[in-house]
Amino acid sequence: MKWLDTSTENCSIQRALDVLGEKWTLLIVRDAVNGVRRFDDFRRHVGLSEAVLADRLRKLLDAGVLETRPYREPGRRTRRDYHLTAKGWDLYPALIALMQWGDKYAADAEGPPVEVRHRGCGAPVEAVVRCSAEHRAVGPREAEVRPGPAARPAPTAGPAARPVATSGPGGASQPDATLRR
Amino acid sequence: MKWLDTSTENCSIQRALDVLGEKWTLLIVRDAVNGVRRFDDFRRHVGLSEAVLADRLRKLLDAGVLETRPYREPGRRTRRDYHLTAKGWDLYPALIALMQWGDKYAADAEGPPVEVRHRGCGAPVEAVVRCSAEHRAVGPREAEVRPGPAARPAPTAGPAARPVATSGPGGASQPDATLRR
Repeated sequence: MKWLDTSTENCSIQRALDVLGEKWTLLIVRDAVNGVRRFDDFRRHVGLSEAVLADRLRKLLDAGVLETRPYREPGRRTRRDYHLTAKGWDLYPALIALMQWGDKYAADAEGPPVEVRHRGCGAPVEAVVRCSAEHRAVGPREAEVRPGPAARPAPTAGPAARPVATSGPGGASQPDATLRR
Repeated sequence: MKWLDTSTENCSIQRALDVLGEKWTLLIVRDAVNGVRRFDDFRRHVGLSEAVLADRLRKLLDAGVLETRPYREPGRRTRRDYHLTAKGWDLYPALIALMQWGDKYAADAEGPPVEVRHRGCGAPVEAVVRCSAEHRAVGPREAEVRPGPAARPAPTAGPAARPVATSGPGGASQPDATLRR
């Protein structure tokens, strides 16, 4: 099945973005990764109105990215704060990958505002794509995209809606499922 | 500087999301990584109206993630199609990280719709955070977030706006810049 003939309806990136696709959502996760737990701290630090923050937190709770836990300060009533679940922590590579891209292409002239370093040796961490067997870094040229077990054909539009359905030599307008550059 | 006292104004994740924060934007990048080049193919495969696609493509061109190149089919006039720049290809780890998260938490019962494998050995690729010196995978517990060269203090809200400014033992409401779980 060629890429363009594969349905995007169950695309995993799309489904991830269904949960995370609003900018503020990942920024809340960023703060949670950095130890922020309390509503007022999120509100102040992320810079959100109460209403928007409450909405985004609710979505993250519904999605199982955050969970609430009770806490109680001496002399006060029990309240609840927000903690990442395992599903939330699994967003760590995506966050670091986005940070690294922003560091490279959108940082201030002085450099990035924060650095994330390996606690053991002090070297910066990096988000990479690697081979799960050999652990070597793999670029897009060395990777092959294949239909998976849930691959489905894209809904076929009628001929009128597919004006350039010519299958030219090599199918230049029909990239296949293996990657080209 | 503690995390909550660090301004998010120049946060690299935030700046990355300023470019990519609309869901459809990353899905266009996904298709471009998979060899899609032409307006009509993006429109049909990503499933966007012409107006929305034109807007998102313009933003990606303005951001330098895509560039246009002329092409000409025999007997037709010259047209332009869309190619990822180096800046665009550098989104590859973020895309794979999001795909992997979606594969794990949001796939159909049968599994993911596509698989990305190392062309050399056929093993799946994975997005990981690793130490740039030792190339060992690093989890959030083994990473330390430090102020970087462009770290700035967060704008200080007035005392009335910071109701819980108590610096309790250990500063439980003030996570510092090193990561806690």
